Amino acid sequence: MAGRVFFSVSMSLDGFIAPGSLGDLMGRQWMELQRWVFPQRFFRENLKLGAGGEEGRDNDILRETFARTGASVMGRRMFDGGERMWPEEAPFHTPVFVVTHHRRDPWERPGGTTFHFVDEGIEAALDRARAAAGDRDVRIAGGGATILAYLNAGLVDEFSIALSPVLLGAGVRLFEGVDAGRVALELVRTEPSPRVTHLTYTVRRR
Amino acid sequence: MAGRVFFSVSMSLDGFIAPGSLGDLMGRQWMELQRWVFPQRFFRENLKLGAGGEEGRDNDILRETFARTGASVMGRRMFDGGERMWPEEAPFHTPVFVVTHHRRDPWERPGGTTFHFVDEGIEAALDRARAAAGDRDVRIAGGGATILAYLNAGLVDEFSIALSPVLLGAGVRLFEGVDAGRVALELVRTEPSPRVTHLTYTVRRR
Repeated sequence: MAGRVFFSVSMSLDGFIAPGSLGDLMGRQWMELQRWVFPQRFFRENLKLGAGGEEGRDNDILRETFARTGASVMGRRMFDGGERMWPEEAPFHTPVFVVTHHRRDPWERPGGTTFHFVDEGIEAALDRARAAAGDRDVRIAGGGATILAYLNAGLVDEFSIALSPVLLGAGVRLFEGVDAGRVALELVRTEPSPRVTHLTYTVRRR
Repeated sequence: MAGRVFFSVSMSLDGFIAPGSLGDLMGRQWMELQRWVFPQRFFRENLKLGAGGEEGRDNDILRETFARTGASVMGRRMFDGGERMWPEEAPFHTPVFVVTHHRRDPWERPGGTTFHFVDEGIEAALDRARAAAGDRDVRIAGGGATILAYLNAGLVDEFSIALSPVLLGAGVRLFEGVDAGRVALELVRTEPSPRVTHLTYTVRRR
């Protein structure tokens, strides 16, 4: 059985998933967007921040999202930012396909993450990710513009949003520029946790 | 005990609560925003659309929101639109205070709704609504600009959003222009229903 194509992001109640510039990333409100993630056991393990951490539904969701992912796709800007910020053992542990205009040899990191650079467009990158993922799913990792390109092209099967109780007022809006006339949603699941609301939708074409 | 000040709206997943123009109001996507409301028994009763309708958590939430409301506040544009669209027996059945620049005598409708026109600003309108509501709550009914003015002024205690599984792409954004540096939220409750996700937050100042 072929895997599904999904994305999974934390979004503020006013629709933002990232600050407009990297300089804002450590601002107080931006920490609140991801605050539900930092104390989780899986997050700490995966970034080798030490033992311990919370276990519960939030942690299970992080672990399940990781486990279902056989390959990831990301945009060039997310890769450029991450290349500076990820630890040497990048936290994907699968093949990652970077949509770019610049050819580059694959970049293998310790721990099983290999970045492949695809300069033939978003469909080609997804085809390669599907082949690499086998029967597991393909995650469109980000950033916002890349997620939206896949969503508008009808290439996303479902997505999850961790809706954080914070208003940010500015930044990258997840759905800015969505083709609202084509993209229809169905609410699959709402899972409350004390810190955040986990929402899952499937996508179909109108 | 004094009542609380709240608002309660249906919002699309991309943050819109109303179309940009009345002409769009009957469009397919806009119907989806409120689709969870139309089949409910309370909605049908209150607008005298006939007997029957669904009963369940969605219906209870509509009924509870109505029952807690001792008075409403609305902006002039919402009143102007509603004046043309509400039935003669307007659906509030309480005093409604309209924030306006134009003085006008109170307008009493059959069924207990009386519109009072307040030209001394949003705080004066709220003071009058609080006095009228007694120990019940004051609802900031809308539209978006009026809700935001009260939210940014620190005058809202809590709010509820029925998050609809639809992307609209354009219209009036609930939180456009929010003072994100001042308005902090706490997630009080998430209630899933098959059609929509009911979210409740309290508001505090940073």
